[in-house]
Amino acid sequence: MEKFEVNILGCGSALPTTRHFSSSQVVNIREKLFMIDCGEGAQLQLRRSKLKFTRLNHIFISHLHGDHCFGLMGLISTFGLLGRTATLHIYAHEELERLLQPQLEFFCKGMTYEVKFHHIDPTKAEMIYEDRSVSVTTIPLRHRIPSCGFLFQEKKTPNHIIRDMIDFYQIPVFELNRIKNGADYVCPDGTIVPNGRLTTPSASPRSYAYCSDTVYQRNILSQIKGVDLLFHEATFMHEDAARAKETFHTTTLQAAEIARDAEVKQLVIGHFSARYENEALLLEETQSLFPNTLLAKENLRITL
Amino acid sequence: MEKFEVNILGCGSALPTTRHFSSSQVVNIREKLFMIDCGEGAQLQLRRSKLKFTRLNHIFISHLHGDHCFGLMGLISTFGLLGRTATLHIYAHEELERLLQPQLEFFCKGMTYEVKFHHIDPTKAEMIYEDRSVSVTTIPLRHRIPSCGFLFQEKKTPNHIIRDMIDFYQIPVFELNRIKNGADYVCPDGTIVPNGRLTTPSASPRSYAYCSDTVYQRNILSQIKGVDLLFHEATFMHEDAARAKETFHTTTLQAAEIARDAEVKQLVIGHFSARYENEALLLEETQSLFPNTLLAKENLRITL
Repeated sequence: MEKFEVNILGCGSALPTTRHFSSSQVVNIREKLFMIDCGEGAQLQLRRSKLKFTRLNHIFISHLHGDHCFGLMGLISTFGLLGRTATLHIYAHEELERLLQPQLEFFCKGMTYEVKFHHIDPTKAEMIYEDRSVSVTTIPLRHRIPSCGFLFQEKKTPNHIIRDMIDFYQIPVFELNRIKNGADYVCPDGTIVPNGRLTTPSASPRSYAYCSDTVYQRNILSQIKGVDLLFHEATFMHEDAARAKETFHTTTLQAAEIARDAEVKQLVIGHFSARYENEALLLEETQSLFPNTLLAKENLRITL
Repeated sequence: MEKFEVNILGCGSALPTTRHFSSSQVVNIREKLFMIDCGEGAQLQLRRSKLKFTRLNHIFISHLHGDHCFGLMGLISTFGLLGRTATLHIYAHEELERLLQPQLEFFCKGMTYEVKFHHIDPTKAEMIYEDRSVSVTTIPLRHRIPSCGFLFQEKKTPNHIIRDMIDFYQIPVFELNRIKNGADYVCPDGTIVPNGRLTTPSASPRSYAYCSDTVYQRNILSQIKGVDLLFHEATFMHEDAARAKETFHTTTLQAAEIARDAEVKQLVIGHFSARYENEALLLEETQSLFPNTLLAKENLRITL
């Protein structure tokens, strides 16, 4: 199966701890790398992950809190030092471009590549990226400032042809692409061979939903329905639900409820408050409602 | 003896490696903390060092390359989240204030403390900070952009009084402070008791010189003469002297020569190029000319 992996670079929250880097992940889809959020230290963690810097062309920023974007300048600057030439695309709330521009002009003078900002509107579910194998759609969230998640959806790949059947019907080579993409075959005598006899279906497209900082919000359910993997913040234990609501964050049990009700296949929780030394408790509480849950940690790689 | 320590938070150079954080140090003088440079990840390393965040009120930035200042926003922002109230003083080339201002306004809105910038002129040796126990003076360096080092000089502390002599001459208590500070004592009958009979000298004041990114420059010798500890960059092995000159950096042997000719007591080298996997070779080469040399590394604490 083609590669579809999520690499956790950092999963702490606003306050630095010795346990965690701040938020950053890299989604690897067929060796194309997509970074989600870029907290301080993301470039260091990217180096540790052994992922190839040159494969990273797209960065998605969920919202403009420092722990989700303070690593950008370092990363951009390092790409410059490494002689990068490919354009780097940054998808973020429009404010970010204004904030980074003075520093880009000063620190990255004469850089060998371009940084292109794409302004996103975090209040709408919109497809903001698409290539032939994947699309990325924003998931509107509700936080203290505009915030959104990102839904990565693989596109359906062509069916696999059954070699023996192709030989049996003596189907010419130039027909094969059409057949892989679902066409039936019409024999010279007019007989129609249905596609289902000639191919086996390809793996069903996979999907990953990243839900960044947000208060507990059930109206994301329809958008993330049935995803293979859901990252959801779980900043607090459920006993701190009042604090979660007040700061527009989510608790373990709320994240589990979202995962259960959206019928996702697997949940990974992160963005842990610095107050919890023993994060196993966060995991246990989430698993009490949604057993197939992972605890994010630095350098964790999840294969979809 | 009063505390005078240098804590290395990061000692890598521009390109991130898995071995090093970028440049940052904390000088601890009698539990007052002075940060020098603030590369990405400095706040994380500060947390690891267990030094008290609240004791840090002064940050000195040697020059405006990203690996020496990209950690500032994260640190400033974290101080805000922690409810800091004391003003934070940043000493840097004036450009820095202009570059950070838009981000400070956006990310640190409503922050509980003030960030005060002090513009320094890196081309002059000037005292830029002074309190009753220490002064900090800039050391002009020569790099691709304006750059300076910092000389931390402890002030002489009062002499120690010899209790027996004070009793012998029946010197009243109100005279003691003057005597500690070097005054002779005049007896009621007019006899003068020289200070040297009444006190033993306090420890001699210590000094630390931090020489940041610079090409090999002998005209710093007079300013750093005889310091207890010299940090000098040694980005390159001496075989790469041409590359060092071209990029305005220093080699191991050049740093050793500076240390030897300035007759410093101890040298610590850092800012290692990412190209050297085995940094023991950098140390060996430096020690061949100046034996009392240390290799900087993360979390190293040097007591003066």
